[in-house]
Amino acid sequence: MNIPAGFRCAAVHAGIKASPDKPDLALIVSDRPASAAGVFTQNRVCAAPVKVSRERVPAEGVRGIVVCAGNANACTGRRGLEDARRMAAVAAAEIGCRPKDILVCSTGVIGVPLPMAAVEAGIRKAAARLAGSPQNWESAARAMMTTDTQPKVVSHNLALARGSVNVLGLAKGAAMIGPHLATMLAFIVTDAGLPAHRLQELLRAAADVSFNCLSVEGHTSTNDTVLVLANGAAQGEQLTEQQQEQMGQVLTTVCQQLAEKIAADAEGAQHLVHIEVQGLASFEEARHVARTIANSVLVKTALFGGDPNWGRIVSAVGFAGVPIQEEELAVWIDDVLVFWEGEPQPFDRVALSRQLRDRRVVTLRVQCGRGPAACHFWTSDLTYDYVRLNAEYTT
Amino acid sequence: MNIPAGFRCAAVHAGIKASPDKPDLALIVSDRPASAAGVFTQNRVCAAPVKVSRERVPAEGVRGIVVCAGNANACTGRRGLEDARRMAAVAAAEIGCRPKDILVCSTGVIGVPLPMAAVEAGIRKAAARLAGSPQNWESAARAMMTTDTQPKVVSHNLALARGSVNVLGLAKGAAMIGPHLATMLAFIVTDAGLPAHRLQELLRAAADVSFNCLSVEGHTSTNDTVLVLANGAAQGEQLTEQQQEQMGQVLTTVCQQLAEKIAADAEGAQHLVHIEVQGLASFEEARHVARTIANSVLVKTALFGGDPNWGRIVSAVGFAGVPIQEEELAVWIDDVLVFWEGEPQPFDRVALSRQLRDRRVVTLRVQCGRGPAACHFWTSDLTYDYVRLNAEYTT
Repeated sequence: MNIPAGFRCAAVHAGIKASPDKPDLALIVSDRPASAAGVFTQNRVCAAPVKVSRERVPAEGVRGIVVCAGNANACTGRRGLEDARRMAAVAAAEIGCRPKDILVCSTGVIGVPLPMAAVEAGIRKAAARLAGSPQNWESAARAMMTTDTQPKVVSHNLALARGSVNVLGLAKGAAMIGPHLATMLAFIVTDAGLPAHRLQELLRAAADVSFNCLSVEGHTSTNDTVLVLANGAAQGEQLTEQQQEQMGQVLTTVCQQLAEKIAADAEGAQHLVHIEVQGLASFEEARHVARTIANSVLVKTALFGGDPNWGRIVSAVGFAGVPIQEEELAVWIDDVLVFWEGEPQPFDRVALSRQLRDRRVVTLRVQCGRGPAACHFWTSDLTYDYVRLNAEYTT
Repeated sequence: MNIPAGFRCAAVHAGIKASPDKPDLALIVSDRPASAAGVFTQNRVCAAPVKVSRERVPAEGVRGIVVCAGNANACTGRRGLEDARRMAAVAAAEIGCRPKDILVCSTGVIGVPLPMAAVEAGIRKAAARLAGSPQNWESAARAMMTTDTQPKVVSHNLALARGSVNVLGLAKGAAMIGPHLATMLAFIVTDAGLPAHRLQELLRAAADVSFNCLSVEGHTSTNDTVLVLANGAAQGEQLTEQQQEQMGQVLTTVCQQLAEKIAADAEGAQHLVHIEVQGLASFEEARHVARTIANSVLVKTALFGGDPNWGRIVSAVGFAGVPIQEEELAVWIDDVLVFWEGEPQPFDRVALSRQLRDRRVVTLRVQCGRGPAACHFWTSDLTYDYVRLNAEYTT
């Protein structure tokens, strides 16, 4: 794990999740003021912590993030807003900074007020345990989880002319995953130094080809948030323009790896599905076609069944609202050509079905033949377990 | 059953469906030339019979419809188009009319060529069995079924100043149900007389508040088709302008009843779900919000689980892309107020959950508080059986 200098974190069980061995609150602190950037859900109904954090970035001088899981603090009215601000204020008092230097996030069930006594005690306990160890970062990633089955952490080292900087990313996913002009719950910290407005540009570009190319069931959450803190602790000086470009590429890679981890660990998923859509007039068009395939319950259940039912893919392309021509379309499932220029192609259905059942990773490729643009999109299949988990979530 | 005069039909097992006791081909014939109107899928990838029938309506002089189930004749290339035209030609030869006077439809698996020898023999057999009996109409409705569990037939009598006219509608649904500016597979016949262009207007208006307000999983089919034949056999003269308005209302009622039957018999469904969205700026806006709720897999699985998880409904409203204000929103589940002006409302969660489990019909009502427009939308829940049926459909 490439851990950025000057960051510490801690996770505790505050008492939001029922199980006492599951951490449910994490605090991430930069020892020095950091540049901060963020992208947030475009859902008109957004959680209290989204409202609070959105006002605070991009900004210089940010000192940390406090996050709790098991309760989204969404649709909780005026009390929810007070609670989100209180979370930041309690963390700020522990760290010794202004409340507005702390960003705040929550994830979990909608419409239930936070148990604030437990949350406040949890923040104080976490503040006493801050450390930069790999164990603490993994615990922080665990504390963000809801129905995720594993913590999601990626890290990178970017070599510069003199020395290097580290970038570390944490994310949670599982369900209600359909980021749209927005993102998911993910935090990225780096000891590189760059101004907040530039960090915001780089994050927006990275999110556009990563979290915005991700869907589990297409339902945009009330709580989606990606935050980046860059504290410059590695170099003591700001990145050059060229190094900022390199940092943008690393940010993109980190975001894409986190997005892929979210798709792979989607609720009940048995397949990680890569969708490669090519031959469109623009990236936005390609992404729209890819998202329409990804959100088709019929495509997702066919993949669960190991069924190379390409008709559902072609049909999803057809209703995406892009003026494609059936005669220009081609479709591959795991590199097997199944449809070419409007005509079904012969293939070994039994062998391809066996392959789909045996492999955990599936690639669907669609060539639309109307332009140069392409999109890589991540999704999952739809299984009995997804239905079970979501039929039983609050009752 | 109010059977329109001058129409006959028959259903046979042609050999498309595996089970020999399931009819899979139907022929509907008007004994005299009829006005015909149709609305079709807006999917860019549409089935061969859609391409053929769309060219032929609205029209006067139409004599019948031939439909087969178990095979969609979609994504079947040039051969599929020839097969669809051949179905019409064979039926026309039996009835004694021009091929273009016959409309053609198919539904079922995508991408497999029709077994034309069996289909042609089936059409000839059906032509020999034409009758206007209730049994024959029910058999025709059965012959359209794929995974539907019951035939869908509704009929109405419209009293006029002198005498009356009958309207009879047949439909199939089950899955890949997300009509969009289009419709579903449904046929309506009436012995009223009115010109084809007027029939087309009335059908379009009726479809807009019925089949276009229906979704099972939001996936727009390649084959959606609604056809209406009006042969004037009841009166011998055309409806007056005022009677045409009345006919429009009857058509709307017939379409809405068929749409509700499709939602109630959706694949694997345990609940028929009515979604009442109110307080929007326009009908289109209200329908868009309703459709976003209806297509949310999270809302649908919660309903399957008997879970009054209103946060998912509010969140779906929020990402529908309409500029609603959270503080204006109110939500009722089966008349229980759960959210009011941005604040959660106390309610008996256990009692409401029990009620959701016990009842087959559920109503979700959302008041958005930004205008006078409303929409009534039909959908279903998402169950293990839906996943099973669609994971196993072709393999």
